[in-house]
Amino acid sequence: MAPTKTPIIAKSFDYLVIGGGSGGVASARRAAKYGAKVLLIDAKFKKLGGTCVNVGCVPKKLMWYAASAAHGRHHLKSYGLSENDDDEVKYGDFNWAKFKVKRDAYVKNLNGIYERNLIKEGVEYMFGFARFINSDGDVEVTLSGDQELGFLDEGKSYKKDEKLVFQAKHILIATGGTAIIPPSVQGSELGITSEGFFALEHQPKSVAIVGAGYIGVEFSGVFKSLGTETHFIIRGDTVLRSFDDLIQHTITDYYTDKLGVNIYKSSGGVTKVEVDKDGKKVVHLGNGKIVEADVLIWTVGRKSLVDLGLDLAGVELNQKKQIIADEFQNTANPKIFSLGDVVGKVELTPVAIAAGRRLSNRLFGPEIYIKDKLDYNNIPSVIFSHPEAGSIGLSTKEAEAKYGKQNIKIYNTKFTDMYFGMMDSDDLKSPTAYSIVCLLPTEKVIGLHIVGESSSEILQGFGVAIKMGATKKDFDNCVAIHPTAAEEIVTMT
Amino acid sequence: MAPTKTPIIAKSFDYLVIGGGSGGVASARRAAKYGAKVLLIDAKFKKLGGTCVNVGCVPKKLMWYAASAAHGRHHLKSYGLSENDDDEVKYGDFNWAKFKVKRDAYVKNLNGIYERNLIKEGVEYMFGFARFINSDGDVEVTLSGDQELGFLDEGKSYKKDEKLVFQAKHILIATGGTAIIPPSVQGSELGITSEGFFALEHQPKSVAIVGAGYIGVEFSGVFKSLGTETHFIIRGDTVLRSFDDLIQHTITDYYTDKLGVNIYKSSGGVTKVEVDKDGKKVVHLGNGKIVEADVLIWTVGRKSLVDLGLDLAGVELNQKKQIIADEFQNTANPKIFSLGDVVGKVELTPVAIAAGRRLSNRLFGPEIYIKDKLDYNNIPSVIFSHPEAGSIGLSTKEAEAKYGKQNIKIYNTKFTDMYFGMMDSDDLKSPTAYSIVCLLPTEKVIGLHIVGESSSEILQGFGVAIKMGATKKDFDNCVAIHPTAAEEIVTMT
Repeated sequence: MAPTKTPIIAKSFDYLVIGGGSGGVASARRAAKYGAKVLLIDAKFKKLGGTCVNVGCVPKKLMWYAASAAHGRHHLKSYGLSENDDDEVKYGDFNWAKFKVKRDAYVKNLNGIYERNLIKEGVEYMFGFARFINSDGDVEVTLSGDQELGFLDEGKSYKKDEKLVFQAKHILIATGGTAIIPPSVQGSELGITSEGFFALEHQPKSVAIVGAGYIGVEFSGVFKSLGTETHFIIRGDTVLRSFDDLIQHTITDYYTDKLGVNIYKSSGGVTKVEVDKDGKKVVHLGNGKIVEADVLIWTVGRKSLVDLGLDLAGVELNQKKQIIADEFQNTANPKIFSLGDVVGKVELTPVAIAAGRRLSNRLFGPEIYIKDKLDYNNIPSVIFSHPEAGSIGLSTKEAEAKYGKQNIKIYNTKFTDMYFGMMDSDDLKSPTAYSIVCLLPTEKVIGLHIVGESSSEILQGFGVAIKMGATKKDFDNCVAIHPTAAEEIVTMT
Repeated sequence: MAPTKTPIIAKSFDYLVIGGGSGGVASARRAAKYGAKVLLIDAKFKKLGGTCVNVGCVPKKLMWYAASAAHGRHHLKSYGLSENDDDEVKYGDFNWAKFKVKRDAYVKNLNGIYERNLIKEGVEYMFGFARFINSDGDVEVTLSGDQELGFLDEGKSYKKDEKLVFQAKHILIATGGTAIIPPSVQGSELGITSEGFFALEHQPKSVAIVGAGYIGVEFSGVFKSLGTETHFIIRGDTVLRSFDDLIQHTITDYYTDKLGVNIYKSSGGVTKVEVDKDGKKVVHLGNGKIVEADVLIWTVGRKSLVDLGLDLAGVELNQKKQIIADEFQNTANPKIFSLGDVVGKVELTPVAIAAGRRLSNRLFGPEIYIKDKLDYNNIPSVIFSHPEAGSIGLSTKEAEAKYGKQNIKIYNTKFTDMYFGMMDSDDLKSPTAYSIVCLLPTEKVIGLHIVGESSSEILQGFGVAIKMGATKKDFDNCVAIHPTAAEEIVTMT
């Protein structure tokens, strides 16, 4: 055991949670509900909520709403509510700076709600960087700001950079992840990541986004909808490569043909980034093309935040440097657990929340929860693209690979939502496309893939049905709700 | 058998369908798919599609979209997309006349699609008023317009008001219904109904709507959102009395407090209607109040269209003068069937469609369908109010009456959708409220009642799950989709 000069000042915690994001907070609160004495440590000073609240789901959705409102403005004339020919949102129309102030205030308010929720449940919390210092799981915390720690000394103020060591019976690592800038690309540091996106005080006139995943797709949609010249650099021919072909093609085609995003397909990747005399980023692609833009954003992946002295604690990492945790969230150290993005299995807020609650059920709850764990199958996920998309279960290709093509039946439909029936120009219409993947002979629904207005909201109920084992006949047995888009999912032939 | 001078000109139809609305068309097409020789008769000349297409769901939803777009315009400033202080839609801002032309064109296009779909399936059709002339179910048709009837004589033109008599093995009555003007109220004919609403060429400056059902609620929302001074006269204290309290109160309060609809509660009904020298309708209420408006709209109920010589055919009516049909759509005459609004059980387009298809499955389909019928339980329905609302199954009160209060558990939530988090004024925020009605001890979901953005789209998937017998645990087992409104339905505690 490594010696430490910092005194161990608390031995009595049942549960020490490292990371105050969605998973950590949910697990801490659930544990406290069962009477456990819980301490939660978050690195970001006074910014509880993690990626989701601060630089993820929440500010992203607010930007998506702004982009949707921009589309709505462009539709006003078609809906008889404007005589203007210039309702389309162009660069300069959106007050990014003012909106960011409001968005930041919304996030700050959520940070406060998270704190109050911890207080309400009796969870102690503090802000600092945690590191394991031995295999017993003793955790040294370096404070990330001046703060009072009422659970140690009433009224005493601790200073930034002070160190304290804590011990607990059970420890959860839920430190999440962060976006990466590819280190091997020359000049890559001239670009920012999603965190930089949320820090932008002003709207760039032009932007180059690299990486075909959902974050790149969402940012591209937001920028272009708000009037920024948008260059989107991808390695393949379609965006959203991990999703069903229907989603890949519908979004790629719409972005290219209607929304006006400049997609650079088969880019060969980015080989070099320079800056010109005007401060523009000059992005060299593997296929020889050059893209210039005011801002370069990398959306090429995320890495786990594991700078926690894990080797001292005997917690193991996989090849991607993510913490290895089993289905019960156990790590290699029997008193240490891990979940959420730092594990990297399914990087979604509600997954971390569900896993966190179930872990606390198991560790601190009644006997019936002794084997509680999250089922990672059929987790719905959505993309806040324009239009929205959502997905549950297997894609057609995955289903065919797993069960054989002859055992799979696909139902497809593509149509124009009634909302767009009033548009004065076809360019204003966005597509709706649905696909149901069924396993023969029962036609059990093993995949659902949807693109179109309200897809994020439509998917949740179908998620419940699919998780229950719904067949195509179960879909059809529910009378349609007319006129909606969702009704097409229960009337496909 | 009553003698007739009109020659019987066709004996060879398997299926004669009276009414070219959603139910009739769906049943006719399904029958033809099985090889049946089908004739469909619709009264409205060249306006196939019935209430839904012509004076119901479709043009209503388009008006609702316009009203929603008006709200969107008002939200632009909050979303940083306008500097105007007058984005709120006021009377004169909406080009009703121009929008109606486009709306009518959309409907006309659908009329054509309905015709082409009949042709594609090989269903013969004609336009005329049908009447039974004897107990054999012989049907005399008085043509409602000049038309060619290729299935009788190629190239010959038949004239309006000509009469033809048809016979068939099976006959379906799917004539639907029509809105009523209360005959006992003096001056009631000064008002119009929903059909008159869709005929309005110009937006009235003020409107009085009578009747608290979903049609009145929808019209009130549309008018007020588009800038018309809106008076809404109801007998009780809340609108939507047939829905769960959560829906009644949320919508009534929002309409009153935020949307600015003038709701006249406990009106005592309308006692008299007059017209003043400016053409304004002066509406006298039972409670002594007087409402003046440019246009008066009755939304007080509908009646079945049964002027078909039903007594001659031996088809029986109930006390509400609706056709009596059993769960297999059988009437008192074994060769005559009926479904849809004329039966009045559940007056929804998809119900008529589903019943129509199942009847044809049973009459003309393979052996496996010999007992096919529509299950009228757990049919979802929605209200295109502002905000939207939707409902499946039993209300809290119905559930408590049926199972006893001690056997019912209710989950409730009320929150502000993230979209409204950016609004500069609380007056711009509309509420979201959800209620799940569960039957103990299994917590089987027997009712779901929702109000808020996208409710109409959210409900469909939950409809599938509830029809499958979902419990609260099944709801909770599906991982939430974040950030959405619908996720609150699977995370309620």
